[in-house]
Amino acid sequence: MAKGASLSGFPEWLPQERAVEQKIIDTLREVFELNGFLGIETRAIEQGSSLLKKGETSKEIYLLSRLQEVGHESDVPLENRLGLHFDLTVPLSRYVVENSGALTFPFKRWQIQKVWRGERPQEGRFREFVQADIDVVGNGELPEHYEEELPLVMVEALERLGEFGLPKATVHANNRKLSEGFYRSIGLTDIEGVLREVDKLDKIGEQEVAKLLVSECGANEQQAQACLDLAEITTADADELAAKFDSLCTKYSVDTTSEHYELAMQGLTTLSTIIRNAASIRPGAVVADLKIARGLDYYTGSVYETFLNGAENLGSICSGGRYDNLATSGKKKYPGVGLSIGLSRLLSYLLHSVGASATRQSPAAVMVAVWNEDARLESNRIAAALRARGISTDVSPNSAKIGKQIRYASHLGIPYVWFPANAEVGSTDQVKNIITGEQVEADRVSWIPDTVYAQQSIIIKDAE
Amino acid sequence: MAKGASLSGFPEWLPQERAVEQKIIDTLREVFELNGFLGIETRAIEQGSSLLKKGETSKEIYLLSRLQEVGHESDVPLENRLGLHFDLTVPLSRYVVENSGALTFPFKRWQIQKVWRGERPQEGRFREFVQADIDVVGNGELPEHYEEELPLVMVEALERLGEFGLPKATVHANNRKLSEGFYRSIGLTDIEGVLREVDKLDKIGEQEVAKLLVSECGANEQQAQACLDLAEITTADADELAAKFDSLCTKYSVDTTSEHYELAMQGLTTLSTIIRNAASIRPGAVVADLKIARGLDYYTGSVYETFLNGAENLGSICSGGRYDNLATSGKKKYPGVGLSIGLSRLLSYLLHSVGASATRQSPAAVMVAVWNEDARLESNRIAAALRARGISTDVSPNSAKIGKQIRYASHLGIPYVWFPANAEVGSTDQVKNIITGEQVEADRVSWIPDTVYAQQSIIIKDAE
Repeated sequence: MAKGASLSGFPEWLPQERAVEQKIIDTLREVFELNGFLGIETRAIEQGSSLLKKGETSKEIYLLSRLQEVGHESDVPLENRLGLHFDLTVPLSRYVVENSGALTFPFKRWQIQKVWRGERPQEGRFREFVQADIDVVGNGELPEHYEEELPLVMVEALERLGEFGLPKATVHANNRKLSEGFYRSIGLTDIEGVLREVDKLDKIGEQEVAKLLVSECGANEQQAQACLDLAEITTADADELAAKFDSLCTKYSVDTTSEHYELAMQGLTTLSTIIRNAASIRPGAVVADLKIARGLDYYTGSVYETFLNGAENLGSICSGGRYDNLATSGKKKYPGVGLSIGLSRLLSYLLHSVGASATRQSPAAVMVAVWNEDARLESNRIAAALRARGISTDVSPNSAKIGKQIRYASHLGIPYVWFPANAEVGSTDQVKNIITGEQVEADRVSWIPDTVYAQQSIIIKDAE
Repeated sequence: MAKGASLSGFPEWLPQERAVEQKIIDTLREVFELNGFLGIETRAIEQGSSLLKKGETSKEIYLLSRLQEVGHESDVPLENRLGLHFDLTVPLSRYVVENSGALTFPFKRWQIQKVWRGERPQEGRFREFVQADIDVVGNGELPEHYEEELPLVMVEALERLGEFGLPKATVHANNRKLSEGFYRSIGLTDIEGVLREVDKLDKIGEQEVAKLLVSECGANEQQAQACLDLAEITTADADELAAKFDSLCTKYSVDTTSEHYELAMQGLTTLSTIIRNAASIRPGAVVADLKIARGLDYYTGSVYETFLNGAENLGSICSGGRYDNLATSGKKKYPGVGLSIGLSRLLSYLLHSVGASATRQSPAAVMVAVWNEDARLESNRIAAALRARGISTDVSPNSAKIGKQIRYASHLGIPYVWFPANAEVGSTDQVKNIITGEQVEADRVSWIPDTVYAQQSIIIKDAE
């Protein structure tokens, strides 16, 4: 990270680190567009009334005021003030409603943008960070097959990041209907509360969660235990999932004729289809994990979290779910499903734990030397001839001794130094690979760099 | 523009408009990297103390407050509050000082990011918009040749945008030393004031500027006339520039032995070199225009504005200059020179005045039809095979009647519809170009789309 990141929680990257981020963004965009997602950007700023809708982050927003308004901020009600968006899902919902007449539904979109959260920074938490999202939003209805397909698109994208050292990712899926149906079947009613407590399992453990279920959500000890038992079910096999759920229902004497059980079965069917189809396409990529709760309460169907094999302590790097009621206009609903990669956290992990790094700071493959300032124009012409053929080229900033010019190229990691023909000593155009030391005569209209040195690319330092 | 851009001054684009913006950004990045510039991003948020340094926009910043702080904002002095950056030059200066130990100087960087200005929106003014900047920053010193070269990089980049309908751009250059030296030579002392009034020439005309020079800057009528005479000099010829300036100095009896005249001659020499070298590389791309003043007072040498031929009323679309004192650390200075494209305004012009548009909404070249929901997995497999060969592919959202599936593809502008082999009717895999109507047998592992339909690209609608 840039040394002087003087504001905690607001990461900045050095050029060679930014190069890694840029390649990640390019790769994600490529995968998203290959899958037919349309790219959009929404404005960074939303009205308070949008931002303050319910959701776990509602207290973490940044509000804005113009300099002229300082001291009078409180005159304006929060709903009418402006603030920075804290995710890309709430803005998407607004964008879809506002532009429904101009969009084609189901609307498949990708979006990679910064978001802001005004929380106290903790380890690994950023207040400004990049999210990479895909969502599909329907007009009135949304086919369930998108709940199967979207996690697989994300798995495909994350697999491509393996090139930059990212370990294998596994999506853990659950379904709100399954959870809610089960909780209600055993007599619980504070569903939001139960989900909120279950979401803490990884942090505080079973015992503490059980205590909270009793003290906060009106559960008795047996009901609390049932919630923990449900959360323990995890499998990549659809038949096993059905069998385990079945045996749990028997254990807790669930009435299989009730509407609550019916709801649970709806969720179970969706979840089974997801892991069955995923297994046929990418075995092991998606598992059912019934402890996945997700904090945000706008989810109404599938929910997802994604963990890196061997780096589970990083937490979920890609989360999301289905939300049927986030975007509405009058009686019309725009149900959606989507996942979001926390890109800045992923980048930080790749840079600092994996050792991903750009092969060089500069995109340039060549630096043209300058014999003296009168000859700069000729060096510029050589650079222009190389650039016209797509070879990224820099020109020495000065006409100092050649050793000093080469040091500039070397600091930037530029592999080739071009020496223009020098009439004084009778030399022709020459190009030197300053890594291998090889120097050859070269023609500016035909020379090409060796493939390995042509482009700035990403390597894993530790694996070198 | 997206229909529901419900907040004035905060533009949002429809997917087919965003595709144009994305291609512009890709093109600029390509040109900047070909020229050896390193890409960085800085955080969107700066400390008040950075943002409130002098400059014309200092009153137009957005300050932030966390939701928890509402009502207590005034407890924190402005310098300690956070705000959104209003340009990319001030953040660059901070970034360079903070990371000077890790950067290679001269530091050549490109940066394309959103910026925010909390001003009242006027026609064509945005409060959230994208800037595309290149700058070179030196450590202690910065060779003058960058003042010649950077405007030429921008001209090259803007020429490439001709592909999207952008008219030819001309950089108008001036030099602060030339202006200041001349003003002081004729006895004026309020240089900032004079520059501020001269900057209004295009808006309010000569007569009003003359009045303001007298009433606000302590000029007499002859001095005011001299300022207007200087501002009238514009030429692409270095010799003519020298001759005209010479004759002006004679007319106003300037003492050619004074230090003020010396300063003016320094500026004149730099400006002459710029237009002479530009003429040899790109004739007509850069002209000397001595009325260019630039509002920001941190410029200390060359200043630039850029106008589109035939769309001068758009104002400058790419501006900048040399600033020697913006970034400092103790006694050390980091002089820089750079230019900034107002990308959102340019995009708005291309979309609405030129008629630039994406050939289709979706990046997908193919939509695979779905015979029935049981056959969706097979349609997904076909899509995966096409994507594996780099062909962007969507799959029909539903298994409705084929006519309805084709309409979805047609709305998105997807040119090909793929019909999977259908055992029931004994058909093989077929692909239909729904624009030409041509339908052929096709193999998912070898078929390729016609070049003209392969990629989403940009066209000029009016020219169709």
